[in-house]
Amino acid sequence: MEQHRIDQTTRSTSADLVEELLKGSQQAAARLISLVEDRDPRSLGYLQRLSPYTGRAYVIGVTGPPGTGKSTLVDAMTRILRREGKRVGIIAVDPTSPFSGGAILADRIRMQDHSTDEGVFIRSMATRGSLGGLAPATGDAVAILDAMGYDPIFVETVGAGQVEVDIVRTSDSVIVVTVPGLGDYIQTLKAGIMEIGEIFVVNKADHGDAERTTAEIKAMLELAGRQEGWNPPVVKTVALNGSGVEEVLSAVWAHRAYQETNGLLVERRRRRRKEEILRILEEKVRERIHRSTVSTGQLDELAERTLQGELDPYSAADLLYKALFLPGS
Amino acid sequence: MEQHRIDQTTRSTSADLVEELLKGSQQAAARLISLVEDRDPRSLGYLQRLSPYTGRAYVIGVTGPPGTGKSTLVDAMTRILRREGKRVGIIAVDPTSPFSGGAILADRIRMQDHSTDEGVFIRSMATRGSLGGLAPATGDAVAILDAMGYDPIFVETVGAGQVEVDIVRTSDSVIVVTVPGLGDYIQTLKAGIMEIGEIFVVNKADHGDAERTTAEIKAMLELAGRQEGWNPPVVKTVALNGSGVEEVLSAVWAHRAYQETNGLLVERRRRRRKEEILRILEEKVRERIHRSTVSTGQLDELAERTLQGELDPYSAADLLYKALFLPGS
Repeated sequence: MEQHRIDQTTRSTSADLVEELLKGSQQAAARLISLVEDRDPRSLGYLQRLSPYTGRAYVIGVTGPPGTGKSTLVDAMTRILRREGKRVGIIAVDPTSPFSGGAILADRIRMQDHSTDEGVFIRSMATRGSLGGLAPATGDAVAILDAMGYDPIFVETVGAGQVEVDIVRTSDSVIVVTVPGLGDYIQTLKAGIMEIGEIFVVNKADHGDAERTTAEIKAMLELAGRQEGWNPPVVKTVALNGSGVEEVLSAVWAHRAYQETNGLLVERRRRRRKEEILRILEEKVRERIHRSTVSTGQLDELAERTLQGELDPYSAADLLYKALFLPGS
Repeated sequence: MEQHRIDQTTRSTSADLVEELLKGSQQAAARLISLVEDRDPRSLGYLQRLSPYTGRAYVIGVTGPPGTGKSTLVDAMTRILRREGKRVGIIAVDPTSPFSGGAILADRIRMQDHSTDEGVFIRSMATRGSLGGLAPATGDAVAILDAMGYDPIFVETVGAGQVEVDIVRTSDSVIVVTVPGLGDYIQTLKAGIMEIGEIFVVNKADHGDAERTTAEIKAMLELAGRQEGWNPPVVKTVALNGSGVEEVLSAVWAHRAYQETNGLLVERRRRRRKEEILRILEEKVRERIHRSTVSTGQLDELAERTLQGELDPYSAADLLYKALFLPGS
């Protein structure tokens, strides 16, 4: 299998992007992910062609407050999975950075560790445009790595807000990483993260009172009535030296088996697929709205009338809505 | 004018919410903003009725990295504006907090300062649902305070990511707050914030090398070619003791005069109005999509077919799109 370099030649024959990608070209994957981040219209056709090859990878979401060592934990899990012969995808999302400079730098630093390893693909995602596009772009990046045969795929989010919660919700298992002493912080502010966790990790367990934090998380889970169904385990780790990392992976596979036995994984993926279809549909509709309102000057005219006080914005939207769906009326 | 308490009686006569609000009831305003945050369908009718009373307030966006003293600066400006007899609205947005507990606490603490002052209205906004709704909800909250005659209205964002940039973009003047020593940080990571700033504040100027930070910001502005048109001033403040705060307000009014003279304010508000109409339209369309796909079971059926491998998600979205716009075909 021939390896292509990114040069003018391959750029111009972008019709073969999908083929290159299915042959395993990380450069082709990186290029398609960039198109996806830019919401380039060409990306839709490529993603459609990749679609039949997706749905195989197990997707593991990793989230938690900044500074808890999420990347170190993901790297430690990746080393173990590589020894087992698995090809690992890592997608790191940083919604707080509107520009990708920082993300790209982080990629380079992390890639050095695996730079000679074709079995690991690391990619950072940044909000190039609006934040609304980050969650779908992450989903598309997962699909691309999935089609290339990376399995499992980690989706790691750097922050701890609503966007991150939305993003890790698209995975098959969610690991929430914390550190000793962060208990109170999480308890008061980050309830959203606690609710979505299926495996809890107390990292840097060699510093501070890890036992107490573990007990606090368990108490919170009990209070939340989470003891029914899957009982989220709380694992103590020191990701830097690998301690406890095997146990985290075992917990992930146990969660997978639990979901497979109960039909929950199928249900979870069905829900995700529905959201994906709706998202593609909404994007198409948004394009149509743009064509029929912005390009025709109709929006300009109506906005002007609202600024003159002849019309309120809600009635203006109503008129556009009618023109969109009842063009004959 | 009678003051109503929030009790079961006023809740049931919510038809008068708009009237109460226009009479100056802060309770009515708080209730309508809650409806707006929840994307409650009733809010649309209320906002439409308020629409004729909006468009008067000058909206001042305040953003910058965490810990730079944005709230303290806004409070200091508010005290000056109150002495001038102005009624001031303050909307504090924290996109990093998916739950409103923290925001509400912050409200209470800040309100103590102005609790006996009917001329100040402070409200925190949190992401109750998806993050995509926070920017529009903030715009609606501005409209509500505007209709009540608060002028100016501060929109203060706690974080420093893309959402915050989107939110402060909806204001008439944007103040970016930084502190001595943060120069490098801003230079590398927060370029998005630098691009939108129209007035720069180096707060806590009594700590660290404020002169150097001021010089760095000026150098960056020059590098960015920002010297054409409006030349963003850089003001040193110690918001805690009020030092320099008058100058910040003078800079805001100078920026306002500049925009009014050049027709830029009208242009800015026209663009904002267009975005607002499009946003209302997209919300209506999203409802229609929900009705015609989710409720009818069509989405379930198509998702199932994609999971069986009969169809890809892009073709499924295509079928839904056609059903939506070409129901006869």
